[in-house]
Amino acid sequence: MTQSQTTDLSALLDRQEAERELFELLRIPSVSADPTHTEDMARAAAFLQRKLQSLGFTARMDPTGHGGQSGHPVVYAERLEAPGKPTVLIYGHYDVQPEAPLEEWVTPPFEPTVRDGRIYARGSTDDKGQAYAHVRGVELLLSQGELPVNVKFLLEGEEEVGSPNLAGYLAEHADELRADVIVISDGSRFAPDVPTVTYGLRGLSYVEIHVQGANRDLHSGSYGGAAPNPINALCEIIAGLKDDGGRITIPGFYDGVEELTPEEREMWAKLPHSDEEFAASIGVPALPGEKGYSTLERLWARPTLDVNGIWGGYQGEGSKTVIPAKAGAKVSMRLVPGQDPERITRLVQEYVPTLAPEGVRVEVKALHGGQPVKVDLDSPYIRAADRALTRVYGKPAAFGRTGGSIPIVADFRRLLGAPVLLVDFGLNEDAPHSPNESFALEDYHNGILTSAALLQELGHQELGE
Amino acid sequence: MTQSQTTDLSALLDRQEAERELFELLRIPSVSADPTHTEDMARAAAFLQRKLQSLGFTARMDPTGHGGQSGHPVVYAERLEAPGKPTVLIYGHYDVQPEAPLEEWVTPPFEPTVRDGRIYARGSTDDKGQAYAHVRGVELLLSQGELPVNVKFLLEGEEEVGSPNLAGYLAEHADELRADVIVISDGSRFAPDVPTVTYGLRGLSYVEIHVQGANRDLHSGSYGGAAPNPINALCEIIAGLKDDGGRITIPGFYDGVEELTPEEREMWAKLPHSDEEFAASIGVPALPGEKGYSTLERLWARPTLDVNGIWGGYQGEGSKTVIPAKAGAKVSMRLVPGQDPERITRLVQEYVPTLAPEGVRVEVKALHGGQPVKVDLDSPYIRAADRALTRVYGKPAAFGRTGGSIPIVADFRRLLGAPVLLVDFGLNEDAPHSPNESFALEDYHNGILTSAALLQELGHQELGE
Repeated sequence: MTQSQTTDLSALLDRQEAERELFELLRIPSVSADPTHTEDMARAAAFLQRKLQSLGFTARMDPTGHGGQSGHPVVYAERLEAPGKPTVLIYGHYDVQPEAPLEEWVTPPFEPTVRDGRIYARGSTDDKGQAYAHVRGVELLLSQGELPVNVKFLLEGEEEVGSPNLAGYLAEHADELRADVIVISDGSRFAPDVPTVTYGLRGLSYVEIHVQGANRDLHSGSYGGAAPNPINALCEIIAGLKDDGGRITIPGFYDGVEELTPEEREMWAKLPHSDEEFAASIGVPALPGEKGYSTLERLWARPTLDVNGIWGGYQGEGSKTVIPAKAGAKVSMRLVPGQDPERITRLVQEYVPTLAPEGVRVEVKALHGGQPVKVDLDSPYIRAADRALTRVYGKPAAFGRTGGSIPIVADFRRLLGAPVLLVDFGLNEDAPHSPNESFALEDYHNGILTSAALLQELGHQELGE
Repeated sequence: MTQSQTTDLSALLDRQEAERELFELLRIPSVSADPTHTEDMARAAAFLQRKLQSLGFTARMDPTGHGGQSGHPVVYAERLEAPGKPTVLIYGHYDVQPEAPLEEWVTPPFEPTVRDGRIYARGSTDDKGQAYAHVRGVELLLSQGELPVNVKFLLEGEEEVGSPNLAGYLAEHADELRADVIVISDGSRFAPDVPTVTYGLRGLSYVEIHVQGANRDLHSGSYGGAAPNPINALCEIIAGLKDDGGRITIPGFYDGVEELTPEEREMWAKLPHSDEEFAASIGVPALPGEKGYSTLERLWARPTLDVNGIWGGYQGEGSKTVIPAKAGAKVSMRLVPGQDPERITRLVQEYVPTLAPEGVRVEVKALHGGQPVKVDLDSPYIRAADRALTRVYGKPAAFGRTGGSIPIVADFRRLLGAPVLLVDFGLNEDAPHSPNESFALEDYHNGILTSAALLQELGHQELGE
């Protein structure tokens, strides 16, 4: 593989036609959350199905639903004409966020408009633009001959409403969806001039703590000094969950946590990140956290514990002298590779009651969990992505992780068992989910080139590597 | 003074007429909170004015109000026919709590009914029954001759709505209301067979703590580990306000606190109190608090710190992964003699920010304060009350305090400068403020006798003692 290949691809790119087609897709208001757009959802799915059929894919629209509720269709397409070569499953979604607040859009959300080199439209970056870059990437390769790998497309219509039918669909079609690697482009690169591969996501354990004091609300004058106060107790419990160094005190919590390698720490230290700018962007004077780790390390590779909500007693105006009967909090822990959400939840359920002061009863309810995900940096897929990005951007890729959990990624891992490559084309400044969402024309076209280059590079992998 | 005096008073008591008159007053639905009862309020006030006039008092109804809002009238009456003798101001209130929930009343709230020796009616114990016992006590003495002291009645109609006009009324009429001692019967005795004098009340400092993290709510995946979490910070602050022994850590907080005397501790230890029953009555397995003090000592004579309300982040169903921008709590401290609410509030405002972890900003807002009150146990008024109760109940009085703050008591002290004697006739089981409020006939009649005996005993005091 040489640099000339990139030039070839770039020279072949029909930018005008790629934009015209994407604009057509962006004009369809496929808002999955809004039942008045059900027909638009079907139109967008049909558009993709027809396009993929025109590229020689076997393509269909699969109905979804469960529990008597019908969902939006999945577009599934495959072209398996590369025997002996890896199979790549490309995931994307054709549904978009609601456009509200409409009055804040400079130009209408479903009339794509180019200003200053950016496409302004709902769905431009999230995820129609990034998903369609793969469609056009495949088309680019087909204009030169057969695809270098077997390609499957799974384009869903419910990502913006929490993918309620995706896990069921994956389980039902697991055989058909089998792949060597799954490629997703539905997020943001680290910075404008940094081609990025995201190789890890944090997992999640989310619990609710309930503290019960007396059997009714009490007057703080008549009972203060003798009745247990569940809010004070809850605060003690929560304060006890971390030590002064910001380390979580739950016994066994860090067992098995994969430490960062010196290479990873060095790599991240070189990324264009500034603590000052990061703090300023959220308006805080400092970035507290676990001692001994940089901000990116804490965000991407260290587990955390945050209270997401708390309640108890009187929350209105003025002063009510009550000792409430109960209090509660939602507490979530971001987990990292080596931690299992179910085990962590169990540890929390065991430990929290031991922190409770005398007089109160404590219950810890498990609400939600998610597996952390990490792709081995030495995997051939990561190396292929690096080569593809280097060809397109003229510089090596940055390898970062992300602090959030992407539930569908964990679903893919769990139900299909294949590694997931997150190769994003967008940027944070695209403002997905906000008014005036946009996608840089250059990022769209680089996305097309990256998709084509990545499939070429993956074609050089041996199966089962 | 001999036991025979009690017998005399008791023999003179016209129980039937005392009940008939009280029932007449109880039939007037004088609910101060409900504007549809404004006329009933005036009827109840007029009833008391007429009655006191019939006893030879100069009595009038004074309108109240401030800021353009008119209030319910104060009934003020005086009979100053005991030159050289002390002046006693008797406070009570003729307004009552709303009757809701009506369906839980066994008999209608404004049709007084006697069952098992108890008068069931709204206001029977709180405070019409207890206040009217003083009116009948005075009448009893008058049937024998002139009153042994100068007597002033101040009967307000807004106690159940927080006495919004009382402080203003006291300030305006301070000269006229001048008294050597103020007697209030508007609460509960310690136990059924325990005649009680309450000689102390706790004060209050009530603040609101606001903690600000980032300038907006953040996603806990993208920011968890680096962004300050104001709920975690608030919990750390609150947990830091007490040590493991339940002692409040605010520097200077205990400065000046009056320690209990060995006599007080011994006296309270003899009161019929059971920790087991107290804990069972509120459904808790233990009664946590400051180490080294009994439950009654902690409730009556030790300062406390309780969180009365807390809020922040997501309080709805399910799991929302937010790091909220802010959190807050209402925190109140019960204060004891020797502590000044303004000073304590200032100490809290100085100390709380020092407990804040890195990255958050903290503000402590003063909401409300109240002075602690204590009457010297050696005062002649206390001794007079003791003698009066001993005569009526045939056993010496118990001297206790109460953990709450009664704002009007502090107002009386502050604006009239006289000691306040709290001599209660009711019981907790009377269920004031609840459906089926009641007052034992025996307690009503003992109240009349106590009032008469107390005025006699106070007549033996020298002025200015």
